[in-house]
Amino acid sequence: MSVINSAEVPVKIGSIYPSPYAEMVAGRSSLRLGQAGGLSQFGVNLVTLAPGAMSSLRHWHLNEDEFVMVTEGECTLVQDAGQTVMRPGDCAAFPAGRPDGHHFLNRAEAPARFLVVGTKAPREVATYSDVDLVVEMEAGVSRFTYKDGTDWAGPR
Amino acid sequence: MSVINSAEVPVKIGSIYPSPYAEMVAGRSSLRLGQAGGLSQFGVNLVTLAPGAMSSLRHWHLNEDEFVMVTEGECTLVQDAGQTVMRPGDCAAFPAGRPDGHHFLNRAEAPARFLVVGTKAPREVATYSDVDLVVEMEAGVSRFTYKDGTDWAGPR
Repeated sequence: MSVINSAEVPVKIGSIYPSPYAEMVAGRSSLRLGQAGGLSQFGVNLVTLAPGAMSSLRHWHLNEDEFVMVTEGECTLVQDAGQTVMRPGDCAAFPAGRPDGHHFLNRAEAPARFLVVGTKAPREVATYSDVDLVVEMEAGVSRFTYKDGTDWAGPR
Repeated sequence: MSVINSAEVPVKIGSIYPSPYAEMVAGRSSLRLGQAGGLSQFGVNLVTLAPGAMSSLRHWHLNEDEFVMVTEGECTLVQDAGQTVMRPGDCAAFPAGRPDGHHFLNRAEAPARFLVVGTKAPREVATYSDVDLVVEMEAGVSRFTYKDGTDWAGPR
């Protein structure tokens, strides 16, 4: 059968971000449900945000569509235009190439969870809105640069 | 902002199936949330099954990954190996090309809902497990055939 036993899916913690950005998402963990179910064309992760945690640095994707449904607690979506509190059942979509960075904050006192779906493009570029950081990902390799394209060597 | 106002998303009813198969999914409706949010790389639909309804004919996809999370009520997943009752939060994955047809039945007395994600491949073939029917979809055109490849002209 194709039902995913989430109790058997490993809890993923940590981040590909370089320090000090990795520490900023320390309260985030996720289950890679799509991978556990054998999917390869898009990722499906169930993300848990501890109280006070953030989902990621605020970012936008060049090549990959992204979709989110909140499943538990309250998530505050932050974008260029401001903030929106999202609750279970609320959904948001982030089309590839739209340069409006987003992330989710848990400002409540209980854990929050959301399901996030993202295409797996052969090559991806994510640009971080609030810091001088870009990541290019291809064939499993991530390369961090400043927004001027030079190799990242620490916050500036 | 990128939040989807589901109250403004049109409720889709009906089916591309030829009669008499279309009538078999009469109790199904859906909201095309991904499309409403401007996504093009994968579809995200919130499907409602009235009591007694089925989600689709039992089928499998040749080229498109599919993922489901139940959000409300009870959905009975039917596959070759048997049946599984799924409840809110339960997830299932159907990798492209795995020839094990699936569909969902609502055998409870309350409406059931699930979120379904599927890749949008340029060309797709869906094969129906329990009837002599195949559909090929390309560039917005659907062609129904029997499993021997000849044009469909009624149930047999």
